[in-house]
Amino acid sequence: MLPVDLPGTVRDALLAPLVDHHCHGVRRDDLNRAQFELLVGDGAASAPPGTTRFDTPFGVAVRRWCAPVLDLEPHAPPAVYLARRAELGAAEVNRRLLGEAGVVAFLIDTAADDVETLTAAEMGRHGGAAADELVRIERIERDVAETAQIAVDYLDGLGEELTARAARAVGLKTVIGALYGLDFDPARPTRGAVIAAANRRLADPKEPLTDPVLLRHLLWCAIDVARERGLPVQFDAGFGGRAPAEPHRADPARLGAFARQLQPLGVPIILLHCYPYHRQAAYLAGALPHVYVDVGLALPHTAAASARVMDELLELAPFHKQLFSSGCRGLAETAYLAALSYRRALATALGSRLAQGEWSAADAARVAHMIGSANARRVYRL
Amino acid sequence: MLPVDLPGTVRDALLAPLVDHHCHGVRRDDLNRAQFELLVGDGAASAPPGTTRFDTPFGVAVRRWCAPVLDLEPHAPPAVYLARRAELGAAEVNRRLLGEAGVVAFLIDTAADDVETLTAAEMGRHGGAAADELVRIERIERDVAETAQIAVDYLDGLGEELTARAARAVGLKTVIGALYGLDFDPARPTRGAVIAAANRRLADPKEPLTDPVLLRHLLWCAIDVARERGLPVQFDAGFGGRAPAEPHRADPARLGAFARQLQPLGVPIILLHCYPYHRQAAYLAGALPHVYVDVGLALPHTAAASARVMDELLELAPFHKQLFSSGCRGLAETAYLAALSYRRALATALGSRLAQGEWSAADAARVAHMIGSANARRVYRL
Amino acid sequence: MLPVDLPGTVRDALLAPLVDHHCHGVRRDDLNRAQFELLVGDGAASAPPGTTRFDTPFGVAVRRWCAPVLDLEPHAPPAVYLARRAELGAAEVNRRLLGEAGVVAFLIDTAADDVETLTAAEMGRHGGAAADELVRIERIERDVAETAQIAVDYLDGLGEELTARAARAVGLKTVIGALYGLDFDPARPTRGAVIAAANRRLADPKEPLTDPVLLRHLLWCAIDVARERGLPVQFDAGFGGRAPAEPHRADPARLGAFARQLQPLGVPIILLHCYPYHRQAAYLAGALPHVYVDVGLALPHTAAASARVMDELLELAPFHKQLFSSGCRGLAETAYLAALSYRRALATALGSRLAQGEWSAADAARVAHMIGSANARRVYRL
Repeated sequence: MLPVDLPGTVRDALLAPLVDHHCHGVRRDDLNRAQFELLVGDGAASAPPGTTRFDTPFGVAVRRWCAPVLDLEPHAPPAVYLARRAELGAAEVNRRLLGEAGVVAFLIDTAADDVETLTAAEMGRHGGAAADELVRIERIERDVAETAQIAVDYLDGLGEELTARAARAVGLKTVIGALYGLDFDPARPTRGAVIAAANRRLADPKEPLTDPVLLRHLLWCAIDVARERGLPVQFDAGFGGRAPAEPHRADPARLGAFARQLQPLGVPIILLHCYPYHRQAAYLAGALPHVYVDVGLALPHTAAASARVMDELLELAPFHKQLFSSGCRGLAETAYLAALSYRRALATALGSRLAQGEWSAADAARVAHMIGSANARRVYRL
Repeated sequence: MLPVDLPGTVRDALLAPLVDHHCHGVRRDDLNRAQFELLVGDGAASAPPGTTRFDTPFGVAVRRWCAPVLDLEPHAPPAVYLARRAELGAAEVNRRLLGEAGVVAFLIDTAADDVETLTAAEMGRHGGAAADELVRIERIERDVAETAQIAVDYLDGLGEELTARAARAVGLKTVIGALYGLDFDPARPTRGAVIAAANRRLADPKEPLTDPVLLRHLLWCAIDVARERGLPVQFDAGFGGRAPAEPHRADPARLGAFARQLQPLGVPIILLHCYPYHRQAAYLAGALPHVYVDVGLALPHTAAASARVMDELLELAPFHKQLFSSGCRGLAETAYLAALSYRRALATALGSRLAQGEWSAADAARVAHMIGSANARRVYRL
Repeated sequence: MLPVDLPGTVRDALLAPLVDHHCHGVRRDDLNRAQFELLVGDGAASAPPGTTRFDTPFGVAVRRWCAPVLDLEPHAPPAVYLARRAELGAAEVNRRLLGEAGVVAFLIDTAADDVETLTAAEMGRHGGAAADELVRIERIERDVAETAQIAVDYLDGLGEELTARAARAVGLKTVIGALYGLDFDPARPTRGAVIAAANRRLADPKEPLTDPVLLRHLLWCAIDVARERGLPVQFDAGFGGRAPAEPHRADPARLGAFARQLQPLGVPIILLHCYPYHRQAAYLAGALPHVYVDVGLALPHTAAASARVMDELLELAPFHKQLFSSGCRGLAETAYLAALSYRRALATALGSRLAQGEWSAADAARVAHMIGSANARRVYRL
């Protein structure tokens, strides 16, 4: 599975079980081709007529690497792959792909859960792994907005619900980068501004939250809870999930001023995905002691080219600041390809440093261990 | 010509004739050294005293790759190259370089045409290819502004002229990215604002258009025409042509909000050049079904390093969303080096995927065919 | 030391003495582990508990490449390295590392000088090289602000001090990118605005200067002096020194409008560090005749991955526009690793172009000579 020859210790460190510190549940139902293709994208739009999402780096990687897990030849055609997927059934496919990912613990954002999606416990069972929960704060806000009658209830509800949910979670997560941008005003909004915004919000609680005052208020409440409980906060940055309207506004560089303001609080900030801004993210992770970085979904989606993405992250990111995640959502293929791409990409990066005499084998093994699981265990206190 | 060994089908697909979906006419007159060097740059400024534009990746590539087309040894010195160019004469040089590009159809932005520039028909004849026209909308605006007396004439004239010119064209093109930036207000401007801006404009119609209200009005008129006629709209993005004052404002990520607004209209948006923001462009092309991407001038200008640029585009761009263009303007060398760099860069990218077992040969051949010509034939309805 | 086989002339050009056109003094005192690790970062914060800055690309490179200069085996553990460093003493360590850098002239920003830092003359002596001074304009401003009583004194003082200091220097340097951002208003501020801002400034002269009006005024004064004396002006851009609060605002693309405005004045603008925006910087250096580019600190800090950073700069930067610098500050290790990384990275880039037949050996040797020293000699009139 690894593309280069490596010393045994390095190989063992790469193949050791991973902590997937950020993912979502995969679908429990059988997917037809249209559904499968939608989930290859961000779920919002189909490929244009006459084209297919199998004509993407991810699509080719599914045929190359997932097909054998379903007992097919590598490079099986899309129709053959999907037919075999249906034949085996979603439960068996999920078990195989999640199991082959070689993951020891999933940290799961359960915000989008519906009946068609595996629960955190089921993800763990299918993957033969532990499963812990990440609290998506914007989901809590939606629940509170839908039940609160007046602004004061809304504000109290946010605090209570965040505290209650955080008590069972290993981390918090915000998608403010996609809903607004990471270039929000870093100051905590005033109570007056929040009350006014909450009143507007309660008039239309079904809409996704885009008001920057409430997004910031929610985030600051989450920071308070995170600080109290010693939890890290994940920020969706750049590539991943529903694309932000203006992708450059999810560049983690734009979170710089806010991150700096958080430095004295000691709340770890974890930047997710980050592509194509992963160099900027690595820079922040090097400059600020509480910032961590991960390229998440970028690895399975850049697939055959993921070695360069990984290598670019390793250009500057401190090795104790980098994490692994799959970012999978809906498709177990993503969980498997993420782990595979991660291991292959890191193997290439380490192999090149060893071949050039830049690193020792002990360096390489230690770094693989840190990024694959040790950093996540330390930051999330697993 | 290809730098790696490839299966015959992949090789054939790479060497098959290309559709160059965006270029300008080349000069018909003999060029002295100062003129040639100006055209290596953006035509606006010479290299500083004591230096030469031959000391660029493009300049070295001219000596390496174009010299043999003019019967010289590779790496011929600049003076020898230019002497041989003069000896053969511009007509013969254009015929050789355009012909060797291996292009089956040129789509040509004829906005800058003057007597020294080959017409679209001549480009086709010299290159042994079909030639179709792209309408630069800011050129139409200039013509209308120079003849209109009052705002109403100006507005009517824009609509009429766009419609008339689009009837003979295969696509529209805007340079709003260079004149203003791609971060313009995505809303269609109000008629009142347009009338007021048109009155200001008519007081000084010789100036290049930089008023954002009129640029947006013009663009929206073009979108209407494009929608009616089923034409794509090209956006100059990042690298290419006259450098924008603030290059980051031509990052196609900044077009995200406008592009999203266009999604229901079904008008294809084609991002040109995009370097060094090609990863952002690829991301948009993956996220939005009507967005297409091309690195154009970036390949001949990055020359010996173009394989990485191509590979970075292939990290994420769906293969049915990527196109080839030379972006050539003035120099037939650019048309030739673009096709050569494209074929060599793509060969390297495909060869690496084949060698690592990531793709099948059939995948590689099909992708080469799609990017080289099939996507352009589909999008431009050639 | 070079990672690839190269023709003798290319090898000689790479190994020839370098002009390090931007660095700071290194520390004369023996450093304990905490001090050493702080200087590996930007000096402002330690690595989080349980981690070490030796777990960075730079840290691994120190153990790999600096250890042998101190008579240790490559990959020596951090504790062994620091013990040997203490045993030899700072003076001997500095002599060895600065000497092994193979530098013929240091251009030194002396703004942060204190008793623990080598003076420019000492840097030259330790490194067996010439030493010239760069004037950090914000340091001059601080000195003037601390002594001026009223705004008029302050304004006069700036002009006088800049003129006096520039008379002994080979260039000026600004850190406006870190203090404010490179996206400042490119217009020269009005005298009224400057006077008002100066009055505010004199009320609190110990604070670092962040007022954009005064920063711009200072910069324009520096431009006047640079123009008069034929000096270039260095701009800290992106990576390097104290990280800017919002890294994207130090993207040199944002200096585009200001740089364009300076074009008629003929004052060379030199972009320092630039990572991860070095492609944008290369683009500006190609588009504007008076703009120069360097990746400085990015090479020793990306260390084992520096070949790609160098290769990306070479994608587009004209060869007569690129310079070498170490950007070292505090640690002689940085000066040594910068020169080493530069030579190894450029060797890899040139070797690849030679192996693919893209460049001739004469091209490669000439480019190595230009970037290593000739461009700096021309621009700084050394």
